[in-house]
Amino acid sequence: MQHIFTVTGMTCGHCEKAVTRAITTLDPQAMVQIDRAGNRVEVQSALQQELLIKAIEDEGYEVQK
Amino acid sequence: MQHIFTVTGMTCGHCEKAVTRAITTLDPQAMVQIDRAGNRVEVQSALQQELLIKAIEDEGYEVQK
Repeated sequence: MQHIFTVTGMTCGHCEKAVTRAITTLDPQAMVQIDRAGNRVEVQSALQQELLIKAIEDEGYEVQK
Repeated sequence: MQHIFTVTGMTCGHCEKAVTRAITTLDPQAMVQIDRAGNRVEVQSALQQELLIKAIEDEGYEVQK
């Protein structure tokens, strides 16, 4: 299932990797695509949206709801 | 010996870690202190300044000369 999030606070490539890793640690099957300039994070994952949001937030980024 | 560099492009805590790691990989004895808001990197190291600058630049950051 595809989830599209607006995520703020990603300032550099390390941040993209941190977000990607947070999600794929939780769901190794997940596919993650990030458009940092657009604050956009696309995730293909079978996990519940709330879990994905929590993983991103726990990494220190804000997810717009 | 103490070296003080003005380094631009460090946007987040990951960047600080990347710069620190670049230096300590080159010189495990080095002490690194970073004031990101002030673009200031202080290094205690016996290495030549040019090598330290190269390590920071190779990591993708700009050292003002």
